[in-house]
Amino acid sequence: PDVPLFIAGPCVIENRSMAVTVAEELHHISRELGVRFIFKGSYRKANRSSGSSFTGIGDEAALEVLREIGDRYDMPVLTDVHETRDVELAARYVDVLQIPAFLSRQTELLQAAGETGLTVNIKKGQFMAPQDMALAAAKVSATGNQRIMLTERGSSFGYNNLVVDFRGIVKMAESGWPVIYDATHSLQLPGAGNGVSGGEREYVVPLARAAVAAGVDGLFFEVHPEPEKALSDAATQLPLGSFRPLVKQLIDLYRCVQPLHSS
Amino acid sequence: PDVPLFIAGPCVIENRSMAVTVAEELHHISRELGVRFIFKGSYRKANRSSGSSFTGIGDEAALEVLREIGDRYDMPVLTDVHETRDVELAARYVDVLQIPAFLSRQTELLQAAGETGLTVNIKKGQFMAPQDMALAAAKVSATGNQRIMLTERGSSFGYNNLVVDFRGIVKMAESGWPVIYDATHSLQLPGAGNGVSGGEREYVVPLARAAVAAGVDGLFFEVHPEPEKALSDAATQLPLGSFRPLVKQLIDLYRCVQPLHSS
Amino acid sequence: PDVPLFIAGPCVIENRSMAVTVAEELHHISRELGVRFIFKGSYRKANRSSGSSFTGIGDEAALEVLREIGDRYDMPVLTDVHETRDVELAARYVDVLQIPAFLSRQTELLQAAGETGLTVNIKKGQFMAPQDMALAAAKVSATGNQRIMLTERGSSFGYNNLVVDFRGIVKMAESGWPVIYDATHSLQLPGAGNGVSGGEREYVVPLARAAVAAGVDGLFFEVHPEPEKALSDAATQLPLGSFRPLVKQLIDLYRCVQPLHSS
Amino acid sequence: PDVPLFIAGPCVIENRSMAVTVAEELHHISRELGVRFIFKGSYRKANRSSGSSFTGIGDEAALEVLREIGDRYDMPVLTDVHETRDVELAARYVDVLQIPAFLSRQTELLQAAGETGLTVNIKKGQFMAPQDMALAAAKVSATGNQRIMLTERGSSFGYNNLVVDFRGIVKMAESGWPVIYDATHSLQLPGAGNGVSGGEREYVVPLARAAVAAGVDGLFFEVHPEPEKALSDAATQLPLGSFRPLVKQLIDLYRCVQPLHSS
Repeated sequence: PDVPLFIAGPCVIENRSMAVTVAEELHHISRELGVRFIFKGSYRKANRSSGSSFTGIGDEAALEVLREIGDRYDMPVLTDVHETRDVELAARYVDVLQIPAFLSRQTELLQAAGETGLTVNIKKGQFMAPQDMALAAAKVSATGNQRIMLTERGSSFGYNNLVVDFRGIVKMAESGWPVIYDATHSLQLPGAGNGVSGGEREYVVPLARAAVAAGVDGLFFEVHPEPEKALSDAATQLPLGSFRPLVKQLIDLYRCVQPLHSS
Repeated sequence: PDVPLFIAGPCVIENRSMAVTVAEELHHISRELGVRFIFKGSYRKANRSSGSSFTGIGDEAALEVLREIGDRYDMPVLTDVHETRDVELAARYVDVLQIPAFLSRQTELLQAAGETGLTVNIKKGQFMAPQDMALAAAKVSATGNQRIMLTERGSSFGYNNLVVDFRGIVKMAESGWPVIYDATHSLQLPGAGNGVSGGEREYVVPLARAAVAAGVDGLFFEVHPEPEKALSDAATQLPLGSFRPLVKQLIDLYRCVQPLHSS
Repeated sequence: PDVPLFIAGPCVIENRSMAVTVAEELHHISRELGVRFIFKGSYRKANRSSGSSFTGIGDEAALEVLREIGDRYDMPVLTDVHETRDVELAARYVDVLQIPAFLSRQTELLQAAGETGLTVNIKKGQFMAPQDMALAAAKVSATGNQRIMLTERGSSFGYNNLVVDFRGIVKMAESGWPVIYDATHSLQLPGAGNGVSGGEREYVVPLARAAVAAGVDGLFFEVHPEPEKALSDAATQLPLGSFRPLVKQLIDLYRCVQPLHSS
Repeated sequence: PDVPLFIAGPCVIENRSMAVTVAEELHHISRELGVRFIFKGSYRKANRSSGSSFTGIGDEAALEVLREIGDRYDMPVLTDVHETRDVELAARYVDVLQIPAFLSRQTELLQAAGETGLTVNIKKGQFMAPQDMALAAAKVSATGNQRIMLTERGSSFGYNNLVVDFRGIVKMAESGWPVIYDATHSLQLPGAGNGVSGGEREYVVPLARAAVAAGVDGLFFEVHPEPEKALSDAATQLPLGSFRPLVKQLIDLYRCVQPLHSS
């Protein structure tokens, strides 16, 4: 393709109205720039740093918002699952199931996701070497499901910090599966806040460019109409209002990089 | 107490006979040395590196072996749980529920374990700063269950390697919960084998001593009658036949260290 | 400028003929592509892993080769200095003095280099946070010399491995000094060989592209007519014969990226 | 021996009076507890984070204080050297030459130190794998000087942080050279202060105990009569007044650990 894949949406479905506002804007960007979006939204947050953080509006309510968005905008929708019991429910509503990074070694979860036949996006564990992601993918592909994506979102680097190793993007691509760069979670500073994860939003743009230049197939962003009011990941979500020019520049860069691969 | 707590047992219940052999030896060591053991055994391995590795003999069959051992030797038994659905089943058989390191951020699992009222042993995630374990413990204690232990098992250090930060043992102890040092998993080299985790068993003894000197409350070891034939973690499990002198020397060291705390 | 700065040359001046071969090719590339090169060559290797490795052909002999190249091709030449006593000698022959990464905290060396008035290229220590490089630069600028460049060449990531943190490129640029990405040393695996440093040459191209996209001002490469016969850093030096298309693609990418900065 | 070796003294010779105060106390401790001390003091700080930090009272003045202390108390004295030109001068005054961690790969410095015939204490670079220290030692022993010690002082762990890998103590001991644990520098947080290194003095005692239990041959401490007024490393130097009970407890622990080695 001559454009990268984009996965974007709010961290969590905080309410219907906010989610639709985001989807509406993604729909416009998609039309204007000729790019494909997968709409991303968690229906429940299962691994917040602190037990008292916001976790969701109710599973089925949030999943129905996702389905509505998928239908209204003809846009595939993605959500993350945390236990095998979640898989059957979520699979009834979405097009892509995502395995969170902490859970990228949980065999049964990977198998259950694989067995739905839906596309499975596996995030690389912060504790995993990129080449070991081929083993995670193999747990899915062994179910007969070959619709797999691998996503880089940073590796543990000391405490409360992540580093993106761009060698890893190439190493994961060698496995043959499409590789996505998660541009917002990669800039988190896990647990560095007072019971919440901090982040360095100011580096999202240069690192997303770097990922395109290094050869990723797609990019993942969390966007929010008002990040400073977001109920989770407020330090890294991008403001929806400035997302369009970013998408445009990454498409331009992607088109510039494509011919280099054959040089 | 004038002796540390010991948690020991095989990585996984491979069969009844092997588990009983281990428990029998722990029982003798316990009698001879006046030390308390918690018998450890996984009833199912849920996060093997590779999907084709051995995962168990059946959940209830393995849990019944654990219960039999607990009853016969009057020894508390511990197993690990991976999803909330596992908790109710496992809680009917064991005395201590363990949260695996990869899952130390999964709020619902911590809550479900807490709600059983059983002791909950939370392993520190390889990706977590030790001070952030207080937040994990708070998710359990918020259920009203104050029977919590925290276990160090190494932090990510580059790829396929772990490092034990002994500052972390002190930092976790500052949270007020007992701190256990997992002497065998800390020496794993995750994913460094060909689809299996390697390990450096030769450093188990000096690091276990260091942990006692640094002030841990207890120690955790995987032991196996024939580690080279073990169906998992073959690189780090200790041979059962040489476990007794190790326990003895760690007790001796612990007794030597205790008076230093008041000096 | 509409092209990045390039620093390139062999790891060490192994002999006059080889160095001139490299310079000749850089000169042609420079003419053809309209790009500026600084010719790089060590006149003595002072920190080989092993004491028995090749260290040079004699200081003055090597420095004279550098000077000859500078004069013949009207190309600035760069070499690295390891002790203050080296500075005066090297400064008589070259245009740019380079401070090796291990020595980026050595105050007197930085000061001595600064006092020559020549441009000083400081490599970021593998043990240093990028923001702390401003302090290293300040040691040079305090001598009144404002001709400073900062070079990224990887950060320690576990043992025998380096990781390039692209946030660091942006953080160093915030100091106001030009930032160079050392594309070959960044891919070293220090000490991973049997007394020599290994490396992963296959990632040089994607990471160099990523660096351009992230916004570096220049790039640094070690090139050798026959890397497999190189007397040092054989695992990472690039073959001279394939350097021209790489330079071309990085210029193309740089031109593509420039307009994004204002978008 | 039935006691460990101790290396202790102030970070830098700030003035004669302070140095003598420290030496006097070490002398008393030595007499009372039957332990051998090497008196440690830098005569010049060559790698402060910031160029404006205090660096010394003059080389020869400081070295004469060291020599006076050595003679008066019949105590070997140690200082660190940073360039080959320093070696000849320092060697006239001291008994042990120390190679700073950042410089542990500088071949010529190691050789020059080796050629003095004095004992050479090589600190492990924060960027080096412990097994690679055998190569650094070989550079010294190739000069015919077999009086070598290796010192652990932490490994880079993310930015502005160090971790002590106790496996490394065992690995370095396998090289056959005595291994020292530097208990104060290991707790530094490099560059974490505002242009100065911070530190976590509160973990010095538990980690020193851990090092003894893991099998080190000696311990290294920076002590100061008034650490809060120290002109360098104020965050980690130990108060002189509380050093005696610490030495005593570490001797007690060492004696307790020795018999374990044969068990």
